[in-house]
Parts: sequence; C-alpha cells; structure tokens
Amino acid sequence: MKKKMQRAVQLAALMALTAMSSGVSAALTNEQLLSVLLSNGAINQQQYDDLTKLSKEDDDAAKKAIEDEVKVSMKGGHIKFKTADNEFKFQVGGRVMVDSAWYMANANTDPDKNWGNGTEIRRARIFLKGTVWDNWDFKVQYDFAGSGSLKDAYLRYTGLKQYLDHPLNITVGNFKEPFSLEELTSSKYITFMERGLPNAFAPSRNLGVAANSYGKVLDDGNWTAALGWFGQGITANNKNGQNEGNAVVGRVTFAPWASKTKVLHFGGAAEYRTYDQELIRIRERPEAHTANNRLVDTGKFRADSSMKWNVELAGVYGPFSVQGEFMQDRIDLTDYAEDVTMSGWYGYASWFITGESRKYSNKSGTFGRVKPKGIVGKGGWGAWEVAARYSNLDLNDGPITGYSENNATIGLNWYATPTIRFMANYVFAWSNNPGLTDPNIAQLRGQIDF
Amino acid sequence: MKKKMQRAVQLAALMALTAMSSGVSAALTNEQLLSVLLSNGAINQQQYDDLTKLSKEDDDAAKKAIEDEVKVSMKGGHIKFKTADNEFKFQVGGRVMVDSAWYMANANTDPDKNWGNGTEIRRARIFLKGTVWDNWDFKVQYDFAGSGSLKDAYLRYTGLKQYLDHPLNITVGNFKEPFSLEELTSSKYITFMERGLPNAFAPSRNLGVAANSYGKVLDDGNWTAALGWFGQGITANNKNGQNEGNAVVGRVTFAPWASKTKVLHFGGAAEYRTYDQELIRIRERPEAHTANNRLVDTGKFRADSSMKWNVELAGVYGPFSVQGEFMQDRIDLTDYAEDVTMSGWYGYASWFITGESRKYSNKSGTFGRVKPKGIVGKGGWGAWEVAARYSNLDLNDGPITGYSENNATIGLNWYATPTIRFMANYVFAWSNNPGLTDPNIAQLRGQIDF
Amino acid sequence: MKKKMQRAVQLAALMALTAMSSGVSAALTNEQLLSVLLSNGAINQQQYDDLTKLSKEDDDAAKKAIEDEVKVSMKGGHIKFKTADNEFKFQVGGRVMVDSAWYMANANTDPDKNWGNGTEIRRARIFLKGTVWDNWDFKVQYDFAGSGSLKDAYLRYTGLKQYLDHPLNITVGNFKEPFSLEELTSSKYITFMERGLPNAFAPSRNLGVAANSYGKVLDDGNWTAALGWFGQGITANNKNGQNEGNAVVGRVTFAPWASKTKVLHFGGAAEYRTYDQELIRIRERPEAHTANNRLVDTGKFRADSSMKWNVELAGVYGPFSVQGEFMQDRIDLTDYAEDVTMSGWYGYASWFITGESRKYSNKSGTFGRVKPKGIVGKGGWGAWEVAARYSNLDLNDGPITGYSENNATIGLNWYATPTIRFMANYVFAWSNNPGLTDPNIAQLRGQIDF
Repeated sequence: MKKKMQRAVQLAALMALTAMSSGVSAALTNEQLLSVLLSNGAINQQQYDDLTKLSKEDDDAAKKAIEDEVKVSMKGGHIKFKTADNEFKFQVGGRVMVDSAWYMANANTDPDKNWGNGTEIRRARIFLKGTVWDNWDFKVQYDFAGSGSLKDAYLRYTGLKQYLDHPLNITVGNFKEPFSLEELTSSKYITFMERGLPNAFAPSRNLGVAANSYGKVLDDGNWTAALGWFGQGITANNKNGQNEGNAVVGRVTFAPWASKTKVLHFGGAAEYRTYDQELIRIRERPEAHTANNRLVDTGKFRADSSMKWNVELAGVYGPFSVQGEFMQDRIDLTDYAEDVTMSGWYGYASWFITGESRKYSNKSGTFGRVKPKGIVGKGGWGAWEVAARYSNLDLNDGPITGYSENNATIGLNWYATPTIRFMANYVFAWSNNPGLTDPNIAQLRGQIDF
Repeated sequence: MKKKMQRAVQLAALMALTAMSSGVSAALTNEQLLSVLLSNGAINQQQYDDLTKLSKEDDDAAKKAIEDEVKVSMKGGHIKFKTADNEFKFQVGGRVMVDSAWYMANANTDPDKNWGNGTEIRRARIFLKGTVWDNWDFKVQYDFAGSGSLKDAYLRYTGLKQYLDHPLNITVGNFKEPFSLEELTSSKYITFMERGLPNAFAPSRNLGVAANSYGKVLDDGNWTAALGWFGQGITANNKNGQNEGNAVVGRVTFAPWASKTKVLHFGGAAEYRTYDQELIRIRERPEAHTANNRLVDTGKFRADSSMKWNVELAGVYGPFSVQGEFMQDRIDLTDYAEDVTMSGWYGYASWFITGESRKYSNKSGTFGRVKPKGIVGKGGWGAWEVAARYSNLDLNDGPITGYSENNATIGLNWYATPTIRFMANYVFAWSNNPGLTDPNIAQLRGQIDF
Repeated sequence: MKKKMQRAVQLAALMALTAMSSGVSAALTNEQLLSVLLSNGAINQQQYDDLTKLSKEDDDAAKKAIEDEVKVSMKGGHIKFKTADNEFKFQVGGRVMVDSAWYMANANTDPDKNWGNGTEIRRARIFLKGTVWDNWDFKVQYDFAGSGSLKDAYLRYTGLKQYLDHPLNITVGNFKEPFSLEELTSSKYITFMERGLPNAFAPSRNLGVAANSYGKVLDDGNWTAALGWFGQGITANNKNGQNEGNAVVGRVTFAPWASKTKVLHFGGAAEYRTYDQELIRIRERPEAHTANNRLVDTGKFRADSSMKWNVELAGVYGPFSVQGEFMQDRIDLTDYAEDVTMSGWYGYASWFITGESRKYSNKSGTFGRVKPKGIVGKGGWGAWEVAARYSNLDLNDGPITGYSENNATIGLNWYATPTIRFMANYVFAWSNNPGLTDPNIAQLRGQIDF
C-alpha cells in the first residue's frame, strides 16, 4: 500500500510537471483519497480501479485543454500571446517618442537660415509580429511620425537550424541592412537622442533578402554574421527608365566577452551598391531631429556605385560603457572621372550612476533593453545614466562640397521603468559651412515602448 | 453503471476540452467529503488531516494561478486585457464613421464655387492604449481618413495620487489642449455630426505637457482643472528659421450636480499663444465636413500672439439636455498696429425619446457614451434622440475680412447599440460672404467604435 | 516516508502553483465516488444528497466561469478572440507581400520610357475586425504600401436572418463593389501575382451601401446575389463644385457544383455610374505592379456616365482549375456625341501538382485559401501549383486612343504553409502602343498573411 501511494504521489508530481500549468491538481487529491479509502476497505479494488481510471481520464482531458490554450503575458510592459507548445506566437505593440528642442546660435544674415525652436513626435510606431508553424516569423511596423513611413515588413524562415549546426535564418522583405552597430541598435535603446553624425552613411532599411547566423565562442563570448542582397526603398525606384540600384552587404561581429556585466565587442561591415547614374545626396542634421538646417549636405549628384565599410568597437564593464565606430564611403561619380571618399567617426562613454549595465544582445551583436533596478511609482527611482559623445563627419572631397562637422554631446538618461525613458541632451555643433551659424542645442525626450 | 460512467467521462472530457481555466471549487467539495468520511469512520484523523492539507494546497495553488492570469473582456464591444492585479492593462480598438451629404443651393456665377454632393470616410481610426506598472498610461491613435493624421500619442504618469489628496496626472505628448466642452467631447459622443461653428477657435491637439486633476464637490457634484504648455502640431514648425509658437492654456469646470440623470455644468478656459510672425488662418466649414467651400475664412495673415477664452454651460435633466458655449479670440497682428477680436457661440437642446440620459464624465468634465436601453438585433429598438442647434461665427474685424455665418441644424440620432450610431442632420447655413451662395445640407452618418 | 511523501506533495502543489487554470472535471469524479461510497454504506443517503448538491453547484460555477471567458485561438496562423457564446468576436491581422521584378525589352529612343528593374513592398496591411452583439460586424484595413491607402472600412448588419428565409446582410462603408470574380477574390488567393488586364474596368472599393445574400441550390450547389449603391472613393469628390459621381451595381453567381474538389461557377455583374462631366482615365500595367510605364492608357477625358458588365466562368476538378472573364465598358463622353465601348477578357488554367484543390467560398462566390497537405519546416513540402493565363485589353474606340494589349503569363506558386506563399511569374506583353517597347517580365513574390 505504502508503495502504491508513493507511486501515486510520484505520478501526480510528474503529471503536474508536464502539465506546466494547471490544475488538475484536484485529481491528485482524488487519487490520494481513493488510495486511502481502498486501504481502509471503504471501497473495493474494482471500485478503486474504475474511479482511478476516471480520475486519470479527467486529468488527461484537462492536460489536453491546457495544451490547446493560448497564454497571454503582460508583465514586462508588452502584451504577448503564444500557444502552450510555442508553435504560434503573436505580439502587438509600438513606441512613442516626443521631443522638444531649443537652439542657441548667432543670427544669420539670411533670417530663413536661422535655427528655430520646435517640438515634434519623433516616432509613433505600431507593429504586429509573430511566429507561425514554429519556423516562420513575421513583422510589420509603421511609423506615423512626420508624413509616415513603413519600417520593418518581413517574413523570416528559422527552420534551417533543424538541419545545421548553427541557427541560420533567411529573411525576405524590408528590414535593416547589416551595417553599423549604432544603426542596428534600436532607437529605443541608443544612448543619445540621435545617432552620431556618421550615421549619414548607414543604409538602414531596404527591401531585400539576407541570411544571418550566430554562436558561442570562448567561455562566454559570441559571434554573429550576416550577408544580404538589397534593392532600394519600398517602392520600385525605376521611374525614369533606370534600373533600381541594388547592394551586397555583409557584417561580422566577435565578442570575446559577452556576459551580463562585461562585454567586449569588435565588428565590421561592408556594402557595395550600384546606382545606375541615379541622383543621390548625403547629409545629416546636427544630432537633433527638429533641426531646420543641415550643416553638412553634399547636394544632389549622380553616382554609378559606392563602396562603404565600417569598424565597430564597444565595451561594457559593470555600469561603465564605451562605444565607437569609423565609417568610410567611396563613391564612383557619374559626371567626373575621379572617385570621392567621405568618412566619419564617433566615440562615447556612459556611466549608470545607479549601477545597471548596458545589455548586449548575442543574436544580433547590438545593444538592448536596460532594466532599472527600481521602478518609478512602485517605490524605486529608476536608472540614471550620464554620457558624453564626440562625433565627426566630413562630406568634402574632390568635386563634392558637403562641408565637415564636429559635434560634442552630453546626455542624461532617466529610465523610469524598463519601457519608459526620459532623455536630456546638450549638443555643441561646429562646421566649416559658411552659409550657416553653429548652434548649441538643448533637447528633451519622453519615450515609451509597449 | 459502466455505461453511465463512460457517458459521464465523455461529458467531463468535453467540458474540460472547451474549458480553460476555472473552478477551484472542486477542492471545497473534497473538504466536505473528507469531513463526512471522518465522522462516518471511513477514514481516520491522520488520513483526514493529510488529505485536507493536500486539498487546501491545491486550492491555494489554483487561486494563485488565477491571480497571475491575464483577463480578457469583450462584453462592452471593446476588447480589453488586464492582469488580475490591474498592474498592466492593454486595449486595441478604433472607430469608423462614414458620411454622405447632399447640398441644396442656388447656382453660383462661378461654377467651381457651387456646392457638390459627396461621400467620405469621416474618421477611420485605430488606437493602442494601456497601463504599465500601475502608474503609467500610454495611447497612440491614428486616423486613416483623408491623407491621414496622428491623433493622441502620449505618456501619462498617474502615480502622484499616492502622495497627494487628489489625483494629479502629468501627460506628455500629443493630445487635446484643455479648451472647449464640445471639442473635448469625443467625436464618438457629440450630439451633431459636426461640432458647432465656433469650434474654429478650439486648438484641439498639440504637442505639450499638462497637469490635470478632479474631485467631488457638494453632494454629488464635481470639479476638474487642467493646465498645460503646448507647442504647435506634431512636426517641428520652424522651417523658415522662426521659433515654433507655443501656448499656455488652462480650463476649470464646476458641476454642482453630476449624477447619472441630472447634470449642471459650468466651465471656462483660456489660452495665450505666441506665433513668431507666423502666417495663420481661421476658417470653418458649414457644419458639414464634405463641404467643398467655406463661407467664413480669414485667409492667411501674420500674427504675433493670440488670447482665446471661452465659457461653457450644460445641463441634463433625465432625457433632456442643453449645452452652449461662447468663444472669443483676440489676435495681435504683425502687420497692423491694432488687435482684432473674433467670436462665436452655439446653443443646443436634445431629447432622448426613448428615455436615456446624456452621460457626464467626472474625470474630464465632458460628455461620454450613451447606452441604449435596448439593443438592435437582440430584441430592442436602440435609443432615439432628436436635437436642434443654433450657432454663430464672426471672423470680421478691423483689417481682417473673414465674414460671418449663422447655422441652424436639426438632428436625429439612432443608437443601435452602445457602440453603433446612425445620425441624420439637416443644416441651414447663412453668411454675408458675397462669393458663395448659402446652402442647405442634408447629411447622414453611420459610425461604430470598437 | 511521511516526509518524503509530503515533499512530493509540496512539489506537486508548487508546480500547480505556477499554473493557471484548473480542473473542472474533478467534480464529476466526485459524483461517481459519492455513488460508490453510498452503495458501500460508507456514507448515508442524506450525506450523499448534500455532497452531490455541493458538487453540482461547483460544477455549475465552473461552467459559468467558462462561458464568461474569452477564447483565444492561434492555430491557423491568425489570432482570434471570441466570447464563449459567440456574441463578440475580434481579430487583428494583416498581410505582407514583397516583390522583385526584372524587365527585358528593346531600348526605347526616349530613355525615360525604358523599363527599369525594381523591388517593392506590394502590400503591407493591418486590419482590425470583429462582431459585436451577435449581429453587427465591422472591419478596418489599411495598406501601408506606397503612399498608403485605406481599404475596407465598414459596418455590417447581419441580424435580418432572424426574420427571413435567407441570410441578408446590409453593409455600409468602404468596401469592394460586387463586380468581377478576380477582383473580388482576395489578393492573398489570386492565382497570379497580379490580376489580368481587364481588371482595369473593375471598380474595386468605393464608399456605399449594399445588400447581399446567398444560399444552396441543387445537391451541393450555391448561389449569391448582391446589389449596392456607391459613391466615389473615400474623400468627397466634389472639389470643383461638381456632384460626386455615384453608381448602382449588382452581381449574381450560380454554382451547380460547389463542393471541396468540384466547382462549376457562372457569374455576371453590371454597374451603371454617373460622373458629372468628371475627368476619368482608364489604364493598366502589364500585369507587373513595379512597371514604370503602361502600354494601355486612355489619358484623361470627360465622361457623363458609364455602363459596365461582365460574365464569369470558373471550374475546379480536383487539382485542376480553369477561370475566365469578359468585361465591357460603354462610356457616354461629355465632349463627343458618340459613346465609346472598351473591353477585355482573360482565361487561365492551373494545376496543383501536389493534389490540393482551389477552394470556393459559398458566401461570396469567389475563391479562398488553399491549405497545403504538408507544412514546410514541419516535415512537409508545401503545395506546388503551375498556371498559365492569356489576357487582353482594348482601350481604343472612337475618339479615345488607349491602345490594346495582350499578355501571356506562366506562373509557379509554392504554398509553404496555409498563410505563406512564394510566387514566380513570367509575363510576355505585346501592345500596339508606338511609344513603348514590349517587355518580358520575370517577377518574384514572398507573401504572408496573419
């Protein structure tokens, strides 16, 4: 009898285990009760067997019901749905970022070229994403800010990991080309309100197809690799009978340390793009998106092709972090025999006064969400981070006069909750553009993602 | 016995199958049974204690599981998600409004200035909103009608109520400035298809920051107060080197009665706004959004600042309701020494033939959703409301010639369900604008929000 | 031993702790147990009655809880919510289609009129739809591709079936006019990447009101009928003082066979539309949406009214399918005494190599989702379909010179999962347009709907 009971208990525990969730547990009590009644002679063996079988069937039905069930989670500030077997997943969410900026500069002789204060919705996005039949991911994301723009819109097959040593994902659609650590780090997580000046070169999203993989190296290190072919933009860019340009692009990263509080990241990428004599333009705002002027701007010129490359370096040591990139763009001009070469770089350091660490994402070789140790409104004070960056962009070469610019930025970030952040940036901008005066810019942001 | 048992098992399996969560309650039965068995001597005290403990543990586990669960509700016509502890909430929804209008007017000498019949999607919105970590609310709403426009996009902190006597919310982002009862009442709930003529002065949504509070007065009365600072629009309005204009605005309301069927509401608001010599324009359609002409229109003129104010009065007595506002806008012109003062007012009465009352919202001092006593398609006939309004707008003063207009409107509303409404409006419009003929307008709307 | 058991029990309870829902069914087991205990004399009749009553109450409470619950399903690749009584339903989803196309053609004397390769997001849509209070459906759908466009935005009453022999639905809002089998078949399900050339005549979505019904005929046959009144587009089309044009349109279909693997469909539709001397234009791309030229294009001309009609024929026999349509458009010109008559037709055949059948939708008389027998990534190879189409469009008549075009297309479709499809089309296009060269077009698509 004792043994039987023990067996029953073990079985019950096992069942509760596989069931994950639930309930069911009332059945457990029943089985114990039946054992007791049998041993007391209150029921006979036949009755015990019948009732135990009944109880088991109930249990199985409940387990089946639980497996079929969709789980909803909200605890992290995002609403997520998934089937209990993880075969199907779905998420709807978005982000809102609201900016206000004040410009301090000498008056321009042309009043239209003064710097004006302004407020704006920097980003207001919604997305739907999910997984279907285990191995297919999708995402659609739209940004309602400004005149609106489609962001991610892709389909991804992740099923090759069944046949290979490593994960190898194939993505088709509109998504970011694998180029530049700061560009590939989501705007939700970048350290300053705007990415540094050399971001002018980063291709960002285009319509294409790419393969990516990643894996472990050394004790707690990590590598990633991505290779893709991309067209231009989300509409057919062939209006004047030209072929739309296209690009081959690849990126590799290597992180000998990639733990929660200690990261050392090396990376590099290159993109070769054809243009079919298209008019292109390279320009950048002074690290403030509300700016109504650009200190560096090549104007439009015709190009046949471009070759871009960059190198990335980043490190995290507890609450301290540094990050830097150098980028170069060599452009084959249509209307001149010579090529032009433009370049830029930035470097920055940040410190979480409250002790958090910047989070490194092993799958993408980029940075991710910082979770403050205390939540504002729930007895905590959030996370506080101070940071400083210097960045440079030189768009002057040969026949192209785009001027050069240097920015120094200091920043203060307050992470009220894992999904809510307030930012203050003060930017000092200098350029050799004779048509504009150099501004200092104070700007604030409130942001939430959900 | 065997057959009965089998049938019972099948039934149980079926139930468990369709089921998801539930019932806890089996544990209770167990405890009763154990008591009976103990007193009958079928089990001994030790067995009773063990089994009772087991049963209690089951019960507690089930209760805890239910608490961790996300609740989904749909019964009001809106889908809402929340954690059982109310810490996280999420909602996705929207609204669709479809209009058709017919214009009756004498022919114009300029055929391009005739009034043309038309159909349009008046509003087609979706929104995501929610609460995270108890004290932070957010909302994003976009309107796909016309060429599309971002509506609400904000982040709100509601946690100060932990430290203060009253709720005091801080909102950052794009939302309606606190000005005008009719403007602040959602388009889902306004009594006529379009707001009255003086709505030309209401600032509606801008990007800014505001504080608002509310509380009880007298027996069943209510007050609200709001104060905010706002910029202009959702993109930086500084293109010509000007600073974007900004405004300080406040509104207070006082309702000595604010019950379900008896409301008396007094309110007033004021907004002081700077423009930095910007070109502005004040104009309004004849209370029909499909109108291809405007009888009142100042054209563009430059302004340095404006001072707006309004007073509000509204009452509900059972199925009867009245509402009125007066608004004035005093504008400091850039190109003339003098100021100009423009104004408008409206007043209306409505009667629910089927006995419902307009609903007053205590938190915002505006009007809300009317729930019909019977649902169409479920045996009821919905709610029926008749209403009449007179409104006036005078945009003529000093050097500004915008003409003046008077409208009389009669309306019939049919609330088929709490979220579905059909509206018919007939508008008589008169103006002293010599370039246009006065139209009569018949218009219909179908609307749903979800 | 006792301790061990207790530990095991605690473990089991802990596991159930993380759980969510629970076991209704235990109550049933209780009833069986009570019967046994009664017949064994371990409890008396009074105790049996009391405990049985208690158990029943538990059971009822559990059933009630289940009924109040919202069910979430994801297994088909779409997330759907509904109350257990089906009174309220909600779904959020969308589709993404990504294209790349290569054009082969002789060089044009005007280089701007060459055909250029291109990539594009063909469709990137999200929708919200649902049912409220049993009898009211709604849908909003927006397409973010290109410069964005509102698709479905409607409200539908389905409650008349309570009073009539047949379903009779009334729809108000923006939705497709009932005209043309291929137009009414969703872009998710059409056999080729683009609809055939005569689709130039199909009115597609406008703002209006329509009634539709359907029913059974013969053994497994089906009929549908729809009649509607529609305006033009989603904004009031009355800018120059004209009245917006409007149309009366109807469609009937008859399918003597309408089973899962055998379909014979006949259909026809007609639309009479007024234009109030509006400028209209009829044109069509060569069955490739990335095309930067159109071989057939009437240019703008003024019309008073048009009368369109079409006939439809389709058949499915196991994996084989054929489909064809003829359309004609007779237009009353404003600037010429005579009418012009334009027309077009297409015919195609398709074969599912893997044995699936095209699915016929009885409610709408159109084609629907094909579910492959094997899922890619879950051990299957998906469904494979080959197809060929010939289509013609003649826009030349009387004073209108729009040229005529013939296309031949071969297609290969791979349905990886029920919601994911990859398509390859090769189009041969010929026209008598002297200003353009005839292209051959190779194009690819990846698509998912969710």
